[in-house]
Amino acid sequence: MQKLQTAIVLVSGGMDSALAAAFAVKTYKPAFLHVNYGQRTEERELKAFHDIADYYNVEKRLVVDISYLRDIGGSSLTDKKIKVTKYNLAINFHRRGLGKPIPSSYVPFRNANILAIAVSWAEVLKAQKIFIGAVEEDSSGYPDCRKKFFLSFGRMIKLGTKPDTDIEIVTPVIDFSKRDIVLKSVELKSPLHLTWSCYKENKNACGVCDSCAIRIRGFRQAGIIDPITYK
Amino acid sequence: MQKLQTAIVLVSGGMDSALAAAFAVKTYKPAFLHVNYGQRTEERELKAFHDIADYYNVEKRLVVDISYLRDIGGSSLTDKKIKVTKYNLAINFHRRGLGKPIPSSYVPFRNANILAIAVSWAEVLKAQKIFIGAVEEDSSGYPDCRKKFFLSFGRMIKLGTKPDTDIEIVTPVIDFSKRDIVLKSVELKSPLHLTWSCYKENKNACGVCDSCAIRIRGFRQAGIIDPITYK
Repeated sequence: MQKLQTAIVLVSGGMDSALAAAFAVKTYKPAFLHVNYGQRTEERELKAFHDIADYYNVEKRLVVDISYLRDIGGSSLTDKKIKVTKYNLAINFHRRGLGKPIPSSYVPFRNANILAIAVSWAEVLKAQKIFIGAVEEDSSGYPDCRKKFFLSFGRMIKLGTKPDTDIEIVTPVIDFSKRDIVLKSVELKSPLHLTWSCYKENKNACGVCDSCAIRIRGFRQAGIIDPITYK
Repeated sequence: MQKLQTAIVLVSGGMDSALAAAFAVKTYKPAFLHVNYGQRTEERELKAFHDIADYYNVEKRLVVDISYLRDIGGSSLTDKKIKVTKYNLAINFHRRGLGKPIPSSYVPFRNANILAIAVSWAEVLKAQKIFIGAVEEDSSGYPDCRKKFFLSFGRMIKLGTKPDTDIEIVTPVIDFSKRDIVLKSVELKSPLHLTWSCYKENKNACGVCDSCAIRIRGFRQAGIIDPITYK
């Protein structure tokens, strides 16, 4: 039997990246990468990451702390309390695809930071693919969520790695709506019950934050019952 | 008087980046970025970073820990002791430009990781330039030290940042030899006496490690006396 190629999968713990993982495991041996930037619900998201990794029997897991992004983002703000809140909101807008203007505290170039880490790991593992669950439509206004950004990053990888390296960025859900995400997740048996979207609570999802609202709407439009528990 | 534009300068503490800083301060208001990846002489290099920043009266300084690169690099090795040594050697080869084949423990794509951080900070500071003291000739074999890599990274920045952002990577010493570095440092009054190259010692430079050897040869070829103290 031919040995499976390895793919790095960026897994935040949300639905989009869980679905990206479902695509990856069809063809590749997955290695899961989770990036923590000091967000409020990080503990819960990390649990979702490991739950999803357990679901797919993923051995290779890497959790990387890049909370320096928060320091960088916060440097433009004076009030410490406002800083944390705005930062988390900003990250949330970005990650959950709210499609609103970028708050001033938003940390730019986040996906480039995350992908650079993934490429470093990919080269060490000799992985040939990096799966990322970015969604272009939902994230309009976020330049580093667009197809042309990922294509350009791919060209840069070729020039910045060894000649025998062949690493491609794969964006399987880039054209999906939240409804598409839900429907495809059911089809591919992505573990929706293990995913986490809420950015306010760590136990039962709040159901009212922007991220929950987007999730709930996606399930409603898909005609599917959300398997997670809300407050 | 027109307000100076800001430039991020990547300052490791060595001669190359100190000279890149000397170029930057001619035209821009500098913000210094230092990246720590858990190398053995990090404490001494950080001192050099702050000494050079003091020399140029640089207010904005950012020190970022990316020791995850060591975790990633080390994952391919079994012996913990060997790991650390090889890692430091590998980093040293890369940073000091020894021009030897990349050791297997070398962490790939390091410059992409560092530049991504710099771009995030640049966007927050509204800086328009990122100065990096990379040297192509000395670093043959390191794909992420080549001009074409930096050009490609620059194109990727344009696609991954907001439309009104204009960030350019500047590589003022990319074509320099170590001799050129020394001569130009003297000409531009780069604080050579504050730089640190040795990767073995934290007090007086050892004078025998590869990095010291390259530095000493550069000064000899330039006909200049090295102002730092050796053991």
